[in-house]
Amino acid sequence: MASPPSPSAPPFPPNGVTLANLQNGQALDAFYLLVCGVFVFFMQCGFALLEAGTVRSKNTKNILLKNLLDACIGAIIWWAWGFGVAYGDSGNSDGNTFIGTAPNNGGPFLARRPLIATPRARYVFAATAATIVSGAVAERCALEAYLIYTTVLTGFIYPVVVHWVWCNNGFLSGAFTEDKDKTILGGCIDFAGSGVVHLTGGVAALCGAIAIGPRLGRFDADGKVVPMPGHSAPFQVLGTFILWMGWYGFNPGSTLGITPAGYGTIMARAAMCTTLSAAVGGITVVFFDRIFSQTYDVAMVCNGILAGLVSITAGCACMLPWAAFLTGFIGAFVYYGASKLLLKLQIDDPLDAFAVHGACGFWGVLAVGWFGHYDYLSFGWDGKNGDVAGKAHYGIIYGGGMLFSAQLVALIIEVAWVGGLTALLFFALKKTGLLRVSREIEEVGMDSSKHGGSAYHN
Amino acid sequence: MASPPSPSAPPFPPNGVTLANLQNGQALDAFYLLVCGVFVFFMQCGFALLEAGTVRSKNTKNILLKNLLDACIGAIIWWAWGFGVAYGDSGNSDGNTFIGTAPNNGGPFLARRPLIATPRARYVFAATAATIVSGAVAERCALEAYLIYTTVLTGFIYPVVVHWVWCNNGFLSGAFTEDKDKTILGGCIDFAGSGVVHLTGGVAALCGAIAIGPRLGRFDADGKVVPMPGHSAPFQVLGTFILWMGWYGFNPGSTLGITPAGYGTIMARAAMCTTLSAAVGGITVVFFDRIFSQTYDVAMVCNGILAGLVSITAGCACMLPWAAFLTGFIGAFVYYGASKLLLKLQIDDPLDAFAVHGACGFWGVLAVGWFGHYDYLSFGWDGKNGDVAGKAHYGIIYGGGMLFSAQLVALIIEVAWVGGLTALLFFALKKTGLLRVSREIEEVGMDSSKHGGSAYHN
Amino acid sequence: MASPPSPSAPPFPPNGVTLANLQNGQALDAFYLLVCGVFVFFMQCGFALLEAGTVRSKNTKNILLKNLLDACIGAIIWWAWGFGVAYGDSGNSDGNTFIGTAPNNGGPFLARRPLIATPRARYVFAATAATIVSGAVAERCALEAYLIYTTVLTGFIYPVVVHWVWCNNGFLSGAFTEDKDKTILGGCIDFAGSGVVHLTGGVAALCGAIAIGPRLGRFDADGKVVPMPGHSAPFQVLGTFILWMGWYGFNPGSTLGITPAGYGTIMARAAMCTTLSAAVGGITVVFFDRIFSQTYDVAMVCNGILAGLVSITAGCACMLPWAAFLTGFIGAFVYYGASKLLLKLQIDDPLDAFAVHGACGFWGVLAVGWFGHYDYLSFGWDGKNGDVAGKAHYGIIYGGGMLFSAQLVALIIEVAWVGGLTALLFFALKKTGLLRVSREIEEVGMDSSKHGGSAYHN
Repeated sequence: MASPPSPSAPPFPPNGVTLANLQNGQALDAFYLLVCGVFVFFMQCGFALLEAGTVRSKNTKNILLKNLLDACIGAIIWWAWGFGVAYGDSGNSDGNTFIGTAPNNGGPFLARRPLIATPRARYVFAATAATIVSGAVAERCALEAYLIYTTVLTGFIYPVVVHWVWCNNGFLSGAFTEDKDKTILGGCIDFAGSGVVHLTGGVAALCGAIAIGPRLGRFDADGKVVPMPGHSAPFQVLGTFILWMGWYGFNPGSTLGITPAGYGTIMARAAMCTTLSAAVGGITVVFFDRIFSQTYDVAMVCNGILAGLVSITAGCACMLPWAAFLTGFIGAFVYYGASKLLLKLQIDDPLDAFAVHGACGFWGVLAVGWFGHYDYLSFGWDGKNGDVAGKAHYGIIYGGGMLFSAQLVALIIEVAWVGGLTALLFFALKKTGLLRVSREIEEVGMDSSKHGGSAYHN
Repeated sequence: MASPPSPSAPPFPPNGVTLANLQNGQALDAFYLLVCGVFVFFMQCGFALLEAGTVRSKNTKNILLKNLLDACIGAIIWWAWGFGVAYGDSGNSDGNTFIGTAPNNGGPFLARRPLIATPRARYVFAATAATIVSGAVAERCALEAYLIYTTVLTGFIYPVVVHWVWCNNGFLSGAFTEDKDKTILGGCIDFAGSGVVHLTGGVAALCGAIAIGPRLGRFDADGKVVPMPGHSAPFQVLGTFILWMGWYGFNPGSTLGITPAGYGTIMARAAMCTTLSAAVGGITVVFFDRIFSQTYDVAMVCNGILAGLVSITAGCACMLPWAAFLTGFIGAFVYYGASKLLLKLQIDDPLDAFAVHGACGFWGVLAVGWFGHYDYLSFGWDGKNGDVAGKAHYGIIYGGGMLFSAQLVALIIEVAWVGGLTALLFFALKKTGLLRVSREIEEVGMDSSKHGGSAYHN
Repeated sequence: MASPPSPSAPPFPPNGVTLANLQNGQALDAFYLLVCGVFVFFMQCGFALLEAGTVRSKNTKNILLKNLLDACIGAIIWWAWGFGVAYGDSGNSDGNTFIGTAPNNGGPFLARRPLIATPRARYVFAATAATIVSGAVAERCALEAYLIYTTVLTGFIYPVVVHWVWCNNGFLSGAFTEDKDKTILGGCIDFAGSGVVHLTGGVAALCGAIAIGPRLGRFDADGKVVPMPGHSAPFQVLGTFILWMGWYGFNPGSTLGITPAGYGTIMARAAMCTTLSAAVGGITVVFFDRIFSQTYDVAMVCNGILAGLVSITAGCACMLPWAAFLTGFIGAFVYYGASKLLLKLQIDDPLDAFAVHGACGFWGVLAVGWFGHYDYLSFGWDGKNGDVAGKAHYGIIYGGGMLFSAQLVALIIEVAWVGGLTALLFFALKKTGLLRVSREIEEVGMDSSKHGGSAYHN
């Protein structure tokens, strides 16, 4: 477009900036949302490679295809109605507390939204929830079933949870307790979505894994686990690094803005806590696992890092660094325990999607109830949370209690909603025979039977 | 350098900021150009992996080398004279309308440019044009020929097109129509370069593919296509995700600044439209292709996404979301048709470089003539475009027409310029026997014969 | 958290921005540090893939594990005490000139730092130093030894060097000469760490490589080099591109802020010089090597690019573009010579870690003494450097001399400190038999013996 600056030309940029347009978030905040959105978007690539590296080579193209489609389908649905379901009514004080209604939000298809960056940046969160599930049902789920559950999850189940927790009108949101007469509901703090995004994806993943059943030969006659190592460790590690990188858009970026006073510090704290939790998670899992396995398992470092990242997602902005450290440390054991438990129960979750996202997502939301620091809850999201109606709305270790109960209530409701609907969905798909590919296809692998050949050639 | 902030130290950063230095684009805009430049730079990595994954393993190192050299050679040429050829005279109202002259632009070698970020950020666009060609002549083009065409394309053919369209003095630029007495020329809107970058690369790619001829065994005796699958689907997908990510620097970043009033919204719109077009492109191609191939082809999703991205590159900042959706949807068929047509004509373009960049680049520029929205054309690039001289300079569907003719004229001139010169270039290389490696080398593969062995070892 | 903007809601972001909070670096600078920190963080992924691609497949998981742990361990140590050792006392004018003391810096564990982004962004520099070493001792170093040297290097050796050069109180820092009575010490300019980070890592790498000895079969009976090609060229190239990308956070980001007047230009210059040096380095090495090898070696382009990047790291902000070009060009030969010399001496450094980071790091610091431009040294880091005490504190080619001697003194002290301590460390590890794995394990490869099997499966 415009020619770039040159000495002989008027100072670049031509029009000049006014403090006003910085103030209304048109410049710096829009840029901030773009960058964080790009980092979060790249997580789709991270999931794709992590999953591809963790499955066997005969199903590589299949899992890559699903991850590509997640990014595409998620974008279309979020634009068409998902965003409206999630954030419709926001700013409309007597809006629906259960579900948003798009029209209030600039019309369907976001035709006229002033700051279009936001839905774009957030759409990837929706895709993430769906992507998590694809890992749990990997190597045996039919593409038709995948298309159905992705649509339902991205277009209805997930955005409704978003509305509850992140929309001002949501009955679990911090704003709710303030605006409406005080109830047990409201006041839940889930900064970047340990619950909203990861628990949702993780619970759906568990229902999917149970409904679809283990991969052929995953458990022998005596119920012993038969190892099915991923086909490429480098892709697992590359995917993990990309996800870690993307989390710096996911967590700090959840301030949704950077210009308001203090937001820079919130963002910085979120980044610092994210780093610490991820790091301690990775170290803890690999060395703890070594006690039993006698090996230093690369996949364990990867999953430990992800466990730490998921665990701190809810509290990254409202904890002190030592609390983030502890959150990641505990998260490591939460992951490890959940992973082994599923194997005991002969539930086959190839990517440990439930252990990483479900179990640690649950712990992450709870951790805020333990470690949420009063200084960091009393401002930030619309300056509405923190000490609510004189009740000690912060972490138990600081003498609070209200917050913990709010977190617990939110968790119970989220698990019930997501677990109930996805259980229905997956068992319906199973009954209709749509859920799983045939024994023959599974043995040959889906790449040669459905995707025109192997992922690798000479 | 300076020590980081600490409580006992004066507030960080030491010198403090003035609104003035935000206004003159020294802080926020320089930062913005850096970040977008980095995203665009990373596209070189995306192309490298996409191309490596799409060729056979015996030519992997060869294509990787070419992509590495593109990034290096492009940087040197763009710094040495490319930028001057493209943007020389800018700001000099009676400058040359055909080609820029470096000296006006702070001297050759950009020794004294005030805001050095810009040429850096844009140099990768030049490398992109050359990289596109390397895909079309992959697996058979001699490195010497590659070095020659890359230099000519990056150093002369491409920057001249840039001068025409993106430099204030260019006879196809929006500014031109305003400044000079009205002619049929000028007023072309190619925001981020569907035509300038992708059509240029795509047309050159087509000439190269025709001149060099198909790979050995690509077509059998009856002219039937013999499949030559890429050697690594994960690299194709990784490359595609990296390119998609980089496009968020390529398209939104083409505002070249973020602080001027309204630029944040233009940038956000560009990001939103880019996402929608890419998403619908990927979905459309894979499901449409399935009708004929009976398979869900991962490569088809990748190329569909790229087709959507290329198609929206010209119009991302001046369309409504639904128009971007439509642009990507139509772009999917444009890609698919062009790809099949080339195979019918027994032209072997291993990366579908022409179908993705050439055909969709052409469509992208035309799409602005259809869907360009009057609100989004009346300001932005130097506030010079939009309703030109009282003529309806916007999309046909809004009752415009001037814009469509301007786009068409620009397309014809670009295709003639690039097609003519690259045809000459490639046939000259062919005549001199420099263009293609020997039959023996092609059969063995270039890695073992020219690059010291296979790309893979134990 | 907060709901995103909507037309019916008050302008987003809710609280509005004041010039004051831009001025105190809470918004724009914090954002800048986040983004540059993310790019630098991603370099860990680049190193992981570059190293994985360069070793043999039987040791792939081992090197991936070490790179993952570098990122984790580095984060914990830097948070716990590394940052305090490096930057403690900063802002405290009569602080210790040799080593920082954490408590002055907001207490250990950074519990209360106001702008937490900085240590996070910089921690990766510490991890980088350790990662460099892992390349030199790859394929034969025991994990226990790795854990020990990483901890010592990241937690003590490296942060002390940081304190000398980058902390206001450091006796090699630019600030020092100003504050204290003039001595030969102080006034060293190492903008982004050619010496502090890369020379430190490179010298440690050399000591490690000498102490551990060559890989089995690396040299035959007559001392001839036996080629041991990396197992995946695409991973080498991917890693190189990621590192190049990350360098745009590493070099420009070392302004540590963007809002102060002129910082945008410093940053832009750093980016420009980084690009030119990397590009010329890559081209020079591959074509120079071809004279001897008769092949275009992809690995040579990769190492040449890295040589150019390391060489310009110290001077990227204080040179003119042509000087950056020359710095990268000379750096290419410095790398090439050092690499061949080590092979002559039968020192086996699989990743050329010393040649790239040690030799070019040394050259990079010296290059500032040659090419440092007076205009670019007279302001920037706290406006303290430049023409010091009336002495010509800039490049020799501009008639300076003081600066060159300051650079030389700093280099000698750094090499002595790092070389001495790491030599002690590695020979102690060797004597105790902890350093190297057994002959059996080395032959089988570490993945199957220590990490539960190969990195690749079907």
